[in-house]
Amino acid sequence: MENIKAYVNQHKDRFINELIELLKIPSISADSAYSQDVLNTAEAIKDSLSKAGCDKVEICETPGYPIVYGEKIIDSKLPTVLVYGHYDVQPADPIELWTSPPFEPVIKTTDKHPDGAIFARGACDDKGQMYMHVKALEYMTTQGELPCNVKFMIEGEEEIGSSSLAWFVERNQEKLSNDVILISDTGMISNTQPSITTGLRGLSYVEVEVTGPNRDLHSGLYGGAVANPINVLTKMIASLHDENNHITIPGFYNGVEELSLEERAEMAKAPFSLEAYKNALDIEEEYGEKGYTTNERNSIRPTLDVNGIWGGYTGEGAKTVIASKAYAKISMRLVPNQDWENITELFTKHFESIAPKAVKVKVTPHHGGQGYVTPIDNVGYKAANKAYTETFGIPAIPQRSGGSIPIVALFEKELKSKTILMGFGLDSDAIHSPNEHFGIFNYLKGIETIPLFYKYFVEMNK
Amino acid sequence: MENIKAYVNQHKDRFINELIELLKIPSISADSAYSQDVLNTAEAIKDSLSKAGCDKVEICETPGYPIVYGEKIIDSKLPTVLVYGHYDVQPADPIELWTSPPFEPVIKTTDKHPDGAIFARGACDDKGQMYMHVKALEYMTTQGELPCNVKFMIEGEEEIGSSSLAWFVERNQEKLSNDVILISDTGMISNTQPSITTGLRGLSYVEVEVTGPNRDLHSGLYGGAVANPINVLTKMIASLHDENNHITIPGFYNGVEELSLEERAEMAKAPFSLEAYKNALDIEEEYGEKGYTTNERNSIRPTLDVNGIWGGYTGEGAKTVIASKAYAKISMRLVPNQDWENITELFTKHFESIAPKAVKVKVTPHHGGQGYVTPIDNVGYKAANKAYTETFGIPAIPQRSGGSIPIVALFEKELKSKTILMGFGLDSDAIHSPNEHFGIFNYLKGIETIPLFYKYFVEMNK
Repeated sequence: MENIKAYVNQHKDRFINELIELLKIPSISADSAYSQDVLNTAEAIKDSLSKAGCDKVEICETPGYPIVYGEKIIDSKLPTVLVYGHYDVQPADPIELWTSPPFEPVIKTTDKHPDGAIFARGACDDKGQMYMHVKALEYMTTQGELPCNVKFMIEGEEEIGSSSLAWFVERNQEKLSNDVILISDTGMISNTQPSITTGLRGLSYVEVEVTGPNRDLHSGLYGGAVANPINVLTKMIASLHDENNHITIPGFYNGVEELSLEERAEMAKAPFSLEAYKNALDIEEEYGEKGYTTNERNSIRPTLDVNGIWGGYTGEGAKTVIASKAYAKISMRLVPNQDWENITELFTKHFESIAPKAVKVKVTPHHGGQGYVTPIDNVGYKAANKAYTETFGIPAIPQRSGGSIPIVALFEKELKSKTILMGFGLDSDAIHSPNEHFGIFNYLKGIETIPLFYKYFVEMNK
Repeated sequence: MENIKAYVNQHKDRFINELIELLKIPSISADSAYSQDVLNTAEAIKDSLSKAGCDKVEICETPGYPIVYGEKIIDSKLPTVLVYGHYDVQPADPIELWTSPPFEPVIKTTDKHPDGAIFARGACDDKGQMYMHVKALEYMTTQGELPCNVKFMIEGEEEIGSSSLAWFVERNQEKLSNDVILISDTGMISNTQPSITTGLRGLSYVEVEVTGPNRDLHSGLYGGAVANPINVLTKMIASLHDENNHITIPGFYNGVEELSLEERAEMAKAPFSLEAYKNALDIEEEYGEKGYTTNERNSIRPTLDVNGIWGGYTGEGAKTVIASKAYAKISMRLVPNQDWENITELFTKHFESIAPKAVKVKVTPHHGGQGYVTPIDNVGYKAANKAYTETFGIPAIPQRSGGSIPIVALFEKELKSKTILMGFGLDSDAIHSPNEHFGIFNYLKGIETIPLFYKYFVEMNK
């Protein structure tokens, strides 16, 4: 694989242009207005896998959006790598905060990306990171360097809970059999310090509805005499954290692993500046659970956040109304040993129990997934670390992430194999936010590093 | 005025049709998209005043929407009645809950309105009630029954705080000089029990904005480690009421008049069924400040209600985002002795003081107004009561209302005269709600009753 760097350099303009074409399709899975775009993206992924050298590529129907499957089997006695990624993207709102349209990709330089970055919804999460694997495959097949079998499984519902993926994996265990699963849907510390994500948080996502009177009322005639569902909702949500920002749902922390002081000291060695963090977010003070550092709060501790809230009059000017209903979307990030279905149940029971009799409450679970931890003595981890060390000139640091890729736990359960999370994005890439972007350096470095993982994984398995 | 009943009966179809035409114009002052409709409504009011017999009618420019002024001066030695009303209406949302389009008036019967009611935004508040006065004037001028001078002042910004009205009144004290002010913009107990509103609550309406991080963030990567502005906003709003639903803003209750047990006992005599109230609103339990009854909570006690709240992802499906900003519209109903500007200041200071350092808070006052109480030994009150007694066959009951017509206090201050609130709507007419309506009985009864007020007011002033 001596010529991988040269190959990437020779083809980089085409690699960038192909990704840009993919980013133009608004494959927002959460909004049914975009369903044809989601389907068109699946077709585009299928074509790109064929062109990159897969022998067999198919669009597999599911109860939801289809899964694109591709494979190149060179020898059944050799190991098999299963690449997972997703072709759907987050909604783009608030659209007015984008400095360029989310589905008209442009390349701009930033402080963190002096070589330029592609700005578009999905640039990093996950079209850009997923497409690195397609281009790495192209290199290995065209140059005769593919050292093992490879399978691709690219889904279209990751941003809405991967429910069809679970359905698909349960029904296709043979087809998906593999020795290691490779995913690029996480980040690394910086462009000079690679890292491998070894832990992910689980997720429980619910929507709540509080109903007061059966119709909107005049706040002068009824104000003070009926339960205002917005006021009640704020009280209910506020009560979900105590004064130390512990979550108050009974049983929520049951079984949650408390890291030893040694482990916490090890974690604290990762380079981190609280001042830089606060400056980057323009906040005067950090915030969170008492007794834990910022890096602990967003990785080893479970959380509860309101992701959206609405009710009453939200237009221009003033309306003196008491709304009939108020709503919120609430998600909980979970750590290992918290079962997401159990947590969803605990939340529902608790939320219903704290509602005053003057209102009615409905809790609707959206989706969820389990947390996950990868051991670092695993062959896959070691092979990835060797690949990073070669391309970055420095070993990767193992890191627990606060994000969730619920399907990693599912893969372990259904396919009995470990997942290696080779992320090339940066935390500052604004995924799920306006102005998402992905560094050109990161994109190309990913394409360069991935084939080396294949090489070392096969060597270490001999 | 013996023939008033016959005159109303003879012309009732035309009276209804003229009002329906007026209700077709969507004069929503809160939404600038409707500004031309608001202006068109002013023109329509001007025409109707000319036709009803005013000698002089003009559209008076203001810094905001114009005020329609009309007058008929028959003898400067006779008393002058100033009629106030408004031609703007509330926004119609939530539009999907209307059973017929808000600006396509239809007549339907209801339990409370067996003779039919006109369903349209503004039917009761205030186009229908204001137009009763125009038709009453028509009767008096065409039949030679006008016993005194009359002035009309109809504004277009009542639903957004009447700020131009204050500007106008301060500059036109001579033009607006009068002996009594007559307003129909309140309700009465029922179609068989008239009532006159003698007290109104004041209002302070503010909008709050809470800013956390400078951009929307991924709730997995940042969740638990930064202040989520929605969670913080819910905590801040929740803390504005204590466990007894008293408002916690320091100084909020300073000077608030506590009614004597006798006065409360007198109030409690008004016919009221808590069961019927709960059934009408489909609520299992009422809610409010401890130590007060439902009718006290919505009339003699100040309140704080969230009228709207929004932030984060509120679309279909799920988005795992921590919003940068969260917003709420909050209004406080005030009772006599609470100065609205002082309350706005107390709210702002308190809300800013309870914000954690991890967020920034902005409070923007929208508008406000003072509360008001009319003494029942006043000539205007007595004349109104005599008019009601004649047309309904039963005296009116004096009543304190929870609503606010902030300009009543302004009139007293600037024009030195008392206001009589002759409301003909019912609480169940759904003003500010979907399916607002105004009973045909109420509309015609109003036209019949108003000229009698003029008659008795002039007689009692002799």
